[in-house]
Formats: sequence, C-alpha cells, structure tokens
Amino acid sequence: MQTQQLPPDEEHPTAAEGGRPAGTGSLDRSLERSWAALADVGRDPTTGGYRRFAWTPADAEMRDWFAEQAARRGMSCERDRNGNQWAWWGAPAPGAVVTGSHLDSVPDGGAYDGPLGVVSGFLAVDELRARGVTPERPIAVVDFSDEEGARFGVACTGSRLLTGALDPDRARGLRDRDGVTLAEAMRRAGADPTAMGQDEEALARIGTYVELHVEQGRSLVHHDQPVGVATAIWPHGRWHCRFDGEANHAGTTRLVDRRDPMLPFASTVLAARALAHQAGGVATFGRVQVSPNGTNAIPSTVEAWLDSRAPDDATVARLVAEITATAERAAAFSGTTVQVSQESYTPVVGFDERLRDRIGTLLGGIPALPTGAGHDAGVLSARVPTAMLFVRNPTGVSHSPAEHAPADDCATGVRALATVLEDLVTGDLACR
Amino acid sequence: MQTQQLPPDEEHPTAAEGGRPAGTGSLDRSLERSWAALADVGRDPTTGGYRRFAWTPADAEMRDWFAEQAARRGMSCERDRNGNQWAWWGAPAPGAVVTGSHLDSVPDGGAYDGPLGVVSGFLAVDELRARGVTPERPIAVVDFSDEEGARFGVACTGSRLLTGALDPDRARGLRDRDGVTLAEAMRRAGADPTAMGQDEEALARIGTYVELHVEQGRSLVHHDQPVGVATAIWPHGRWHCRFDGEANHAGTTRLVDRRDPMLPFASTVLAARALAHQAGGVATFGRVQVSPNGTNAIPSTVEAWLDSRAPDDATVARLVAEITATAERAAAFSGTTVQVSQESYTPVVGFDERLRDRIGTLLGGIPALPTGAGHDAGVLSARVPTAMLFVRNPTGVSHSPAEHAPADDCATGVRALATVLEDLVTGDLACR
Repeated sequence: MQTQQLPPDEEHPTAAEGGRPAGTGSLDRSLERSWAALADVGRDPTTGGYRRFAWTPADAEMRDWFAEQAARRGMSCERDRNGNQWAWWGAPAPGAVVTGSHLDSVPDGGAYDGPLGVVSGFLAVDELRARGVTPERPIAVVDFSDEEGARFGVACTGSRLLTGALDPDRARGLRDRDGVTLAEAMRRAGADPTAMGQDEEALARIGTYVELHVEQGRSLVHHDQPVGVATAIWPHGRWHCRFDGEANHAGTTRLVDRRDPMLPFASTVLAARALAHQAGGVATFGRVQVSPNGTNAIPSTVEAWLDSRAPDDATVARLVAEITATAERAAAFSGTTVQVSQESYTPVVGFDERLRDRIGTLLGGIPALPTGAGHDAGVLSARVPTAMLFVRNPTGVSHSPAEHAPADDCATGVRALATVLEDLVTGDLACR
Repeated sequence: MQTQQLPPDEEHPTAAEGGRPAGTGSLDRSLERSWAALADVGRDPTTGGYRRFAWTPADAEMRDWFAEQAARRGMSCERDRNGNQWAWWGAPAPGAVVTGSHLDSVPDGGAYDGPLGVVSGFLAVDELRARGVTPERPIAVVDFSDEEGARFGVACTGSRLLTGALDPDRARGLRDRDGVTLAEAMRRAGADPTAMGQDEEALARIGTYVELHVEQGRSLVHHDQPVGVATAIWPHGRWHCRFDGEANHAGTTRLVDRRDPMLPFASTVLAARALAHQAGGVATFGRVQVSPNGTNAIPSTVEAWLDSRAPDDATVARLVAEITATAERAAAFSGTTVQVSQESYTPVVGFDERLRDRIGTLLGGIPALPTGAGHDAGVLSARVPTAMLFVRNPTGVSHSPAEHAPADDCATGVRALATVLEDLVTGDLACR
C-alpha cells in the first residue's frame, strides 16, 4: 500500500475550503483541464486512438495523473495489493462511498471509456466540497487496474482479483503477445505481484460503489436525456464457430464440386443478425480467420467468433441455439461441417434495485437502461450494493477513437454523480 | 547454358536401342519409380503437402532429378537464361516438338500439378523409343521455372520471361516474404540473374508445345474419360473488395445503430455464388482480412478478394459487374460502403484449333475441355502453336496434398502424349 500526499492547489478546494458553490463555468473548465492533461497519454499518432495497456509506460502516466489529482485535493492516495488506486476523502474505513472507473484502454480506444468515470469522481468531490457537504462516511475515488484486459486477455483483472473472482496464480501467469507475464510486467512497473489476491479488508471498506461511464450505445439519445442509470449488465458470451470444407483450386473446381466453408459462414452471419433482431438481443461476428486464405484457393476452413448478448440468460441460450442450428443447416447444404463451442459466458448481472430506485428518485426519473458491456461495477455487484450512471454518447460509438460525450452532458453527469454521492454520504443507503 | 550428359542406364532405352514395344507393366513400373523418386522432395512432414518453391533447396533437388532423367536417357540437359530446364533428344534446333510442365509447387501442393507433365514427357520419350519412332525433328522435355509463383508472387515466371511477357528488371526485383529478391535467390542457387529476359533463340526452337497436366476439376469424371484436350484457358482476374463500416462495441451497440461491414460482405459471398452459377462461371472469396478482428468489436473494415473466371471475357466482365452491384446495394442497405477494384486480369487464351482438332482425331475423339487455371502453355500459346492434355482427377482436388490421379490414367496419359508427339515429329503440324 503506497500513500502519497501533496499540498492542494488553489483550483481544487479541500474539505476545509468547501462552501463555495461550483458554477457551471468552473465545472466546464475543470473538465477541459482534465481532458487536456490526458489528451496525449498513450495516444497513437496514426490512428488517434489510445493504447493505455496495463503496466506499460502509458499506464504509469495515467496512474501518476491519478495520484496528482488526489494530492491536489488533499486526498490520500494508495495502491492496493491488486494494483487498484484509491484516493480517499476522509480516513479509509468500512462503509465508504466509492466511485470511479478505470484508466486503461482497448487498442485504439477513445478518451472517455474509463477516464470519464475517474475524472467525474474527482470533479464530484470538488462539487460536494463546493456544495459544502460534510460527509458522514469516507468517500473514495478508485481506478481499477486493467479493466479492458487488452494486454493480458482477461477483463476486469483488478476488480476480479479484489473480490476473489480471479485466481491470483492464474493472473500472475497471464502472458501478453510478447510472452511477458503479468507478474513480470508488474515487477517491471515497480509493483509487487506476490501480494495479489482476494482482499477482504479493501472490500469491506466499500459500503456502496457507483460507477459513472460513457454510454456505449445510443439509448440515451433515443430517450433524449443526458444521464441514465443502469438496470443490469446483459449476459454475454463468446462462441467459436469452425466451418470445415475442402481446399481446392478457385479457378478449376466446378461450383457443384465445391465444399466451400465461406458459404455457410456467410449464411450464418446474415441469419445471426436476423435472429438477434427477433430475440431482442445482439449477435456479432467480428473476428474471422480463413485457411489457407489465398485469393485463388477455396478455403479449407473458416473460423469465426460469435459474440452474443441479450437481456436474460434464457434468451442468449435460445439465440445461440438458433444460430447454431442455422449454421448446421447451411453447412450441411454446402457439403461442409460446422462445430460451435462456447469459449466464455458471463450470466446476467442485476444492479442493486433499492439503490437504483433511490438514484432514479434523486435524479428526477432519469431513464433506466440495461447495458451489453462488462464493467468493474458488474464484478463488484456480486459483493457490494452497486450502481452505474451513463452519460449520453451522441454517436454511440465506443472502443474507437471517435468515441465522444459532449461537455455539457459530462458536466451534467458530474453534478448527477455528486448528488448521488451526497445522498449516500449523508443518508442510510450506504450502510450494508 | 549448361549441358550435362550421363551414360544411359539399362531401364531407359536410348534412341539407338528403341524398337522394343513398351508393355503396360513397364510403363506402370516407370511411373511408380518416378513418383517414388520425387515422393520426399520438399514434402512437409506435418501436412503431407509439397513446398517446392523456386530456387530453394527443394527446387534444386527437383532440378537435379530432371538432369538425371535426361542423362539416363542420353538426352542433353541445359538451363536457359531464364532458369528453364530443357532435355533434348536430338540436337537443339528450330521447329522442335516440346513437351513438359513445371516442377515447383504451391504451398502444401499435391504430387501431380506440374511433375505429372514432366514425368510423362520423359516416359513418352521412352514410349516413342519403344515404338521404334525415328523423329524427323528434335524433341525436348522442358521444366519451366517457377510456374506457381508461390515464392515471389508472379506465376509462370520462367515462360513469361522467355516470351518477353515479364520484364526482367521487374522479375529480378521481386521479393519473397523474407525480403530476398529473385535475383539474390538465383545467385544463392548458383544461377545468373543478369542474363534473364526475352529469349528469341530459345523460343524459335519451339515448333509446337504440348503440356500434359492433371485435371484440376472433375470434367473428365463427368465425361467418364481418362484423358481430355484443352480448348481454352478461361479469362480470370482478381478483384479487391473493401467494405468500410464503423468499429463499435459488439455488446452495447444496438442493431439499428450499427454499420457492420461483415453483413454486406456475407451478402456478397452468397450472391457471387448464385450469380456465378447463372453465368456459367465461377466466383470465389478465398481470402478475407477483418479489422480490427476482435471478438467483441463490430469490424471497421472487411477486405475480401474475389477470384472470378468464366468461358469468355464478356461473361467475366458481366459477372463481376453484377457482383459489384450486389455488393453496393448490400453496403448501402447496411449503412456501409464498398469499393471494388481490379488487381489483375488475364484475358481468354484459346489454344491452337488445328492442333487441338488433330489431337482429337489422333486420340479417338477425347473430350475437349476449357480450364480455369493458368499454365505455361497459356503463356506460350501467344507465340507458338500450343496444346494441353488433361489426365483425370477422381476427386478434382488440386493445390492440396489430396490431389491424385490414378496410375492407370497416368499411363493412358503417357501413351496419349506419345501418340501426339509421334505424330508431331513425323507429320507436318509441327512446322510453323
């Protein structure tokens, strides 16, 4: 555990200085300053996207920024045994109100997925102080380590280790594309991998967790609202589909003599879209690998990965069964075969209903939305009352350099988060 | 030019010893011996396929085998300026009757594509000698260099350089996947790349060229015949299709908000198959590249390469235009775009009609077939009267370790080739 404390600067009121109301202009400027500070960290000059992978120099820069933000606010900063960073307003103690998100990114990710939640956490602290709130329990801003799993292939590593959902030996042995283990990467970054693992002490301190996140979709656009609250994380899984045919000459093999696995794959792509629409879920083929992948060769094999999600487990199961049946019919029709096997599956996560209803009331009946994406909040919800707020994303684009949230909506998000935190640090809901 | 002459062995009659009729048993044993000698050269132990790429050690072994076959038959062996090997029965002179094929392979190719034509050339020489034929003009067996283009990306390099269809400076600068140029590869193999280029002297020696090749399809199976004669090489080309959409989160992006380029690609794959069937041609998508190719990411781009061929140029053009129109409609329907651009195109090659008719008469009305594959014979046909014979392939499989031609059909092919050569070295057709 590392603790760092710097003197506050004049732009960030400490608790002692609280009481000044935070005007919209001040919040807008604080948001601008935050984005400006992070704009160049880990950004690829060609794509304009972010590559902030766990335990890399870019990750270290983000962590330094976090520590600096804590210090400027007079918040103590620590790194827990699993690499998660905590900034405390008040002494760390059980029953704290915790907010935050993550600072790492997918390859060529956008500026908002993760950082918006951390930035909003710090600015909500400013807002609470400006409102003159005196918290009855500690508040923490958290930066969960390696949420995207872009480097080592496992998402939500920091929160899963904390809650015991990920075995520390398995985590230490995870390797990046260069064969470097997570343990080695942590050591190179000056962190101790031997201490990783379930951390009941750190967990007991979290009375409530509220994560603010940019929406990764356009539900709030359709609702015409800047902020929403999450109802649940859709169950989601990955299925490997292997279509096997027969490699042959693309010029000389008559159509009737072909066993071309590209055909049933194509049929399955189109069927998956139609079936997902009917089921009210989503189904995506985003990854494809063709063998031998030669222009003049009918493929021997097309491997494709299906990502499917829906509001409930039964719907996902039925949707995947229907897609599989379609794939099998298409394969049989073209003289090929297909094998569909599940690679991973995460059941539905329902967020705390009492907390969600309270947030809805506090924020004037904002839309309640499910989400199709995994989050640290989903991991934590198995152990502590957890909620998520979403901020409108006009294009819905995420995991892309084009990801965006308007400044006005971000400011509205900060104020909404502050209102929720204010209620939690002064009311009864935070008690477990 | 290198000339090598070894004493004949007792199993291969020289011209002086000719006159013994070649029994079926003798021919079968000669075929068996040839395949046994080549069985292990450049074979991948894992796939069982051949990897005999130009100017590699496996290629050198094949060339040594060729020289040895020539020597055993008392044929002089030379390598021309472009790396093609020639074995001469009689002194090299204009108006010769030439047969042969190539000894290189595609990656994981079969045993027959190429070598069957060279093996059959040598065995046809034996057959002619056994029949007591006294040629009125020289006969040559040729091994064209780098027909498949597997290493340097350009097919029929040896024959194209010979006829002037390939610029020698361009050829010398071609690079393999390790960055080695063709010029450097030739030097390492002991060949001189500086002498490459159009070779009118070598070309003038070819009075007629007849190439025997394993069929790469099942037309002869449908005709129930062991041997056929080629009418033409279908025009063929490659088109690059780039479908551009928008990368996004596969879990959170509503179906209606997606611009997923995998959908129009899939539609185009299915349409291409149906349109090719209607047109009497073929259309294949064998190579696909998806970006970013992540399981949980809607692709930003799907690149796919269309290989299309048909009996005539107008049909290919119409077929590709129809496929392009379908792709554009599908792209527009899904909010994506597509760009189709031609990467290469080879117009129809019609083989010499007089020669083909003569062969048909000589061999008792064997089937006349078009082929969808490119060959050295197609390159040569622009300059000299050229014909091709095909030997039945029960499965039609080619460019695959499973490629096969039955021993009986191979023997029938050798006898048919010998009959054609006999006619050409004693009749008038060979005169240009």
